[in-house]
Amino acid sequence: MGGISLMSHTAIDRLVTLFSKLPGIGKKSAGRITYHILDSSPALAQTLAKELAGLHQAIKRCSICGGFTETDPCFICSDSDRDKTVICIIESAQDMRIIEEGREFKGVYHVLGGLIAPLEGVSPANLSIDKLISRLQSGKVKELILALNPTVEGDTTALYLQKTLKDYPVEITRLASGMPVGGNIEYTDKLTLSRSFRGRVKI
Amino acid sequence: MGGISLMSHTAIDRLVTLFSKLPGIGKKSAGRITYHILDSSPALAQTLAKELAGLHQAIKRCSICGGFTETDPCFICSDSDRDKTVICIIESAQDMRIIEEGREFKGVYHVLGGLIAPLEGVSPANLSIDKLISRLQSGKVKELILALNPTVEGDTTALYLQKTLKDYPVEITRLASGMPVGGNIEYTDKLTLSRSFRGRVKI
Repeated sequence: MGGISLMSHTAIDRLVTLFSKLPGIGKKSAGRITYHILDSSPALAQTLAKELAGLHQAIKRCSICGGFTETDPCFICSDSDRDKTVICIIESAQDMRIIEEGREFKGVYHVLGGLIAPLEGVSPANLSIDKLISRLQSGKVKELILALNPTVEGDTTALYLQKTLKDYPVEITRLASGMPVGGNIEYTDKLTLSRSFRGRVKI
Repeated sequence: MGGISLMSHTAIDRLVTLFSKLPGIGKKSAGRITYHILDSSPALAQTLAKELAGLHQAIKRCSICGGFTETDPCFICSDSDRDKTVICIIESAQDMRIIEEGREFKGVYHVLGGLIAPLEGVSPANLSIDKLISRLQSGKVKELILALNPTVEGDTTALYLQKTLKDYPVEITRLASGMPVGGNIEYTDKLTLSRSFRGRVKI
């Protein structure tokens, strides 16, 4: 009977198990995080506990774009400075945060809530496409930028949207795919290189 | 005025900031973790909150070894199957968990609570050395195994303990230092290689 089996019922072990289920945290990191919190002032644990306990109550989905927000509509959808004629289509609300950090895009968003993946049971009906269509029916939208991952699921979803929305007077574009800035041709995979050729731009 | 400054007052951002202060979690991981919790059922956030809120109340320090425990003495110090004549000296309570997982060591522990590091203001007086000495005064301890990191601080602390405890009839040993199993001589640094030579064993 080793120490592990006895240890596994303690508050420490329950917390390690919980942390190790979060994305990007393995068992070792979960242990380090738990002991760091134990070694720190109890205020850290209490603050974290308070924020986690109130999270789902504080954060709702924006009724227009589907992003996470404390107010409805969210501050982007209700910002008169944002260009409402351009909608950036994203897979998840988290992508909005990453694109906003780039400070490049000045339009508004639409969260699909996933990508079409038949093998994982995600069909178009699971995505927020009806809501997107009703946004298009206002007639004010001029461009949809598909900011979907350059993967099989992203390509499938892009193709599906293109077909489904072909009767609306809206231009559909997609983020450029190719070599990352600072990348190296030698270490670029064949598919990415082929996309870079097809998507080459005049200089 | 970008989106970030406006976003930074929300519950999401407060949680991202808290997570990014934990060891091994950068800003991107903190974002991914926060959105994962938001996307999951509220039960995950509530369970995490509950465990964190109760952590410091549930976990104390063992009055004998200084390790984290729910009962005092801890289950190792109070286990009659553990060899009380061998004490493994460790820097922090977390090291106990890692050594226990190896299921190799059958003695008991003593947590120093740090390593001597004059530049960081850690002197011998900050470590749990008096308590170690009173454990030695029982006269039952035969061996102290120093399981300290093979670093300057670990070496300094080992040397200090060796000098301070030289009048006690106890054997002081230290964990072997050398090339890690599966390692490669070509990629081993000079200091490690030199230690491997000095600590070479007969086969």
